[in-house]
Amino acid sequence: MTKVTAQMSVSLDGCYTGPRDTPGSTDMSGWMRGPEAPGFFRVTRWAVDAAAWRERQGIAGGEQSVDSELIEETFAAAGAYVMGRRMFDAGEVPWGEEPPFHVPVFVVTHRPRPVLERRGGTSFTFVTDGLERAVELARDAAGGLDVAVAGGGELLRQMLRAGLLDQLELHIAPVLLGDGQRLFDPGLGLGADDGIELVPTRVVGTPAVTHIRYSVTGRSKLVLDDRGAGGDLVGLAQTKR
Amino acid sequence: MTKVTAQMSVSLDGCYTGPRDTPGSTDMSGWMRGPEAPGFFRVTRWAVDAAAWRERQGIAGGEQSVDSELIEETFAAAGAYVMGRRMFDAGEVPWGEEPPFHVPVFVVTHRPRPVLERRGGTSFTFVTDGLERAVELARDAAGGLDVAVAGGGELLRQMLRAGLLDQLELHIAPVLLGDGQRLFDPGLGLGADDGIELVPTRVVGTPAVTHIRYSVTGRSKLVLDDRGAGGDLVGLAQTKR
Repeated sequence: MTKVTAQMSVSLDGCYTGPRDTPGSTDMSGWMRGPEAPGFFRVTRWAVDAAAWRERQGIAGGEQSVDSELIEETFAAAGAYVMGRRMFDAGEVPWGEEPPFHVPVFVVTHRPRPVLERRGGTSFTFVTDGLERAVELARDAAGGLDVAVAGGGELLRQMLRAGLLDQLELHIAPVLLGDGQRLFDPGLGLGADDGIELVPTRVVGTPAVTHIRYSVTGRSKLVLDDRGAGGDLVGLAQTKR
Repeated sequence: MTKVTAQMSVSLDGCYTGPRDTPGSTDMSGWMRGPEAPGFFRVTRWAVDAAAWRERQGIAGGEQSVDSELIEETFAAAGAYVMGRRMFDAGEVPWGEEPPFHVPVFVVTHRPRPVLERRGGTSFTFVTDGLERAVELARDAAGGLDVAVAGGGELLRQMLRAGLLDQLELHIAPVLLGDGQRLFDPGLGLGADDGIELVPTRVVGTPAVTHIRYSVTGRSKLVLDDRGAGGDLVGLAQTKR
């Protein structure tokens, strides 16, 4: 059955890239010198080192490893993608004639544009009537495989916030960046007594990264239980502030 | 050999409690109604449900489980603790005559005070000449066992920042809080091309929580590698923004 999935590489402090660059800067060599790149390169290094990722990008080399197998599995599971507008804009030129998706991609945008057909099975369909519609179209196109969020972080947050995500896999790189763009931020729109509950369904640890896959249960109220001890635990709780 | 260790329960988005309460509020029933408590209770629930944690607090019940075994192991490994002043202040009264530490505790503070001896092996020594001195005293008192950071989050960050931590274990509760006090924040004082590197040494997944233990390598420069593909990968990198 088709699931809606997302996966992302993050630092141990939850950043998927360094602090945001000067808004509007689209110059690549500028981006490379800016604050985003060092964190981004560190967090994604495990994937770039893996044979399966490199093969998709048409780059030789890389390691055959558990990490590489998980990447292969991730690519194989996706029958269609949904993608944020900003990611598409940044990718259109560098992806070239044969982008690494090889299945239909649905771009959530405000700008109508005809379908863009590329080699190798990738097509980009521009969806102007919202996220849910993009997911619906991707579901129809996925041929029973999963609909995967291609990125970026903003789209992933919107999907979570809208309750559209069934599965989330994080690849936690063993590094603290201290500052950067956090995958999960107050943009999730949760109040102090709201949470989004998940259930870990698979944990795979390798020397380079920890992969945790979650099934997303959804939004729920956070409750103050009495911890089985009447009022006594209120004090204990407070000590951990 | 004595290691300096820390462990903390956090949400999947890195918070150890909800957003900070009104500064200066020390009234417990007020704290329970405030924004910190719901997140704190959710993130620590796995521990409170475990037999080993409850036993230490003198509370009956709880589950015998892998989570409980890990808690037991954590308590058993600590020969002495270092503790932040705020945690001690909040804990002194509720911990009562027999605090749950059962070994010497060194409190980092600016206020001198005589050693406080409690029942069951716990003593509180107030160290006014800095974090490193507290660690040194704890090391001498640990009898070959580990020196553990008792908390809170601020002390843990200071320890990391000062390069004093050998091992860090995070217990990641499967919940997104959206907002709250983050264990790792810009207070780590890292520049955009600095990181703190760690190596995962043990990963244990249970239905309630994912335990990841890290050895802390320390501060290092984040490098922009060429990803084995010359300049071509600059564009690919940027697409993931």
